[in-house]
Amino acid sequence: MNVEKNRVIGIDIGGTGTKIGIVDARGKILARDESIATNAYPTFGEYINAINEVIGRLIEITGSKGKIRGIGVGAPDSNFYTGNIEHAFNLPWKGVLPLAQMLSECSGIPVRVTNDANAAAIGEMTYGTAKGMKNFIVITLGTGVGSGIVINGELVYGSDGFAGELGHVTMVRGEEGRLCGCGRKGCLEAYCSATGVVRTAKEMLETLDTPSLLRDIKGITSRDVYEAALKGDKIALDVFEYTGKMLGEAIADFVAFSSPEAIILFGGLSRAGNLLLAPLQRSLDKSVLHTFKGKTKIIISQLPDSDAAILGASALAWEQLP
Amino acid sequence: MNVEKNRVIGIDIGGTGTKIGIVDARGKILARDESIATNAYPTFGEYINAINEVIGRLIEITGSKGKIRGIGVGAPDSNFYTGNIEHAFNLPWKGVLPLAQMLSECSGIPVRVTNDANAAAIGEMTYGTAKGMKNFIVITLGTGVGSGIVINGELVYGSDGFAGELGHVTMVRGEEGRLCGCGRKGCLEAYCSATGVVRTAKEMLETLDTPSLLRDIKGITSRDVYEAALKGDKIALDVFEYTGKMLGEAIADFVAFSSPEAIILFGGLSRAGNLLLAPLQRSLDKSVLHTFKGKTKIIISQLPDSDAAILGASALAWEQLP
Repeated sequence: MNVEKNRVIGIDIGGTGTKIGIVDARGKILARDESIATNAYPTFGEYINAINEVIGRLIEITGSKGKIRGIGVGAPDSNFYTGNIEHAFNLPWKGVLPLAQMLSECSGIPVRVTNDANAAAIGEMTYGTAKGMKNFIVITLGTGVGSGIVINGELVYGSDGFAGELGHVTMVRGEEGRLCGCGRKGCLEAYCSATGVVRTAKEMLETLDTPSLLRDIKGITSRDVYEAALKGDKIALDVFEYTGKMLGEAIADFVAFSSPEAIILFGGLSRAGNLLLAPLQRSLDKSVLHTFKGKTKIIISQLPDSDAAILGASALAWEQLP
Repeated sequence: MNVEKNRVIGIDIGGTGTKIGIVDARGKILARDESIATNAYPTFGEYINAINEVIGRLIEITGSKGKIRGIGVGAPDSNFYTGNIEHAFNLPWKGVLPLAQMLSECSGIPVRVTNDANAAAIGEMTYGTAKGMKNFIVITLGTGVGSGIVINGELVYGSDGFAGELGHVTMVRGEEGRLCGCGRKGCLEAYCSATGVVRTAKEMLETLDTPSLLRDIKGITSRDVYEAALKGDKIALDVFEYTGKMLGEAIADFVAFSSPEAIILFGGLSRAGNLLLAPLQRSLDKSVLHTFKGKTKIIISQLPDSDAAILGASALAWEQLP
């Protein structure tokens, strides 16, 4: 009997948790599991075995035996061409980890791997707001800043599989640039991520005398800044103004590169909505080369937060497998 | 009799001169004409007629009747998708000029149009150092700074046909950025073009007391700076150091975008060779994200200067016509 392979598995590997889901052709998550703590496994082999057990269980409860077309994995510092995770900062296992090979061997299912921002871009193209778009960029604004770039309808992996590190373009040159997690100075990520927002807030609180709701909070988070801004807090509003302005300037440069139809903002900080979007749009309009003025749409991702990571990864399995 | 169409025509439209050549499949220019002064024609129609006459003559003398597969044109501010020149700064005719349509109608030959930097990239891919490369960027260092970007083996035109304006990424943000020809401030082009080199030299001569051969020259050109540098002139050497450093920093950002196998430098300033290349390479190595360290080759174009513009444009006709 020839069973149609019309389901895929999406796996999102984060520094703390791992999400796994079975997804049908319409982008519905049939079953999901978020029980695996990424950092609870001493060896990568044990971690892969744990994933494989969960996969077996999800296949069982959804009646998906023989129906799984492929597995797509979003993982940090992963290489689409080799299927390996290479020297990931945020994972407990060091060196080169042959993720695709090990997982496909033990599951018997083909596996494709890319980083979470690329997975988000494929997710937007398959299930989201970028359906039918040939040229767009997803910018993920979370703990860090990532990007997935689509040009001529294809994801850009570059010559080595690692293209699209737009969180690490330099926005403030020289010694005054903020130290970034990558060891360099002045990266976009050091300013326009959730952690960057907190740093901006702390800097403003230190250097200005303006009263602020944030002064009473210990261990400020980007959520605190967001909530204070909603209440009209001057410092918090200035933080979003500053962040949006810089993001707009960065996007003006990205537009000069690939002239995308749209920039799609994704992840935690993008939920700030107009607080971020309004200064971003003003800054982009002011900064962008006249040739491109008014051409690029700025869109906040509409994929539901809880599903986006699994959907993005799963879409890789539709996209890239025969 | 079925004559094989194994020749193409390349046309390079510059602000002052127009170059036209017939090229065979091996990239040999069989005949060329550089007699047309771009700015000698009151209307665009007269200019197109003049080009068409030259084409007829070149076809005649090379026995190419019926053998021309297509015409490729490199022209400023031109749109690959529409075949139009749109609001070109450097040309005598204003507005939107339907170049491809008018030239194909009067010549009876299919015409494809793109800007000179994109033509250079296709030229490198067809006849030059980028043969077989799927991911590379050509940066043209002339009066301005242009770029032609190839990703997954295809030229990047973006959503509107104008992608690849890397001369207009912002390198110096805020008011201290140099005014660029585009009306914005701090663009790469304002620093790393031939004119940028002259501006840097003048700034250094004004602000420093260092003796320099350049102090005796009225109307300094980038060639003067080059020749002074060859003689060991401190200011001239510092100009190249400054230019190379900034270009290296810009390239580090481009690498974060598309992770190209190579960056190919093309045009006047690239002939400075190691004077530019050595500081550029040092700066790139220092600036680039660890992921990409040592991966991207910096190459100076090997296409002969006198032929490159015609070859680049002609390659468009091989590439893009059925």
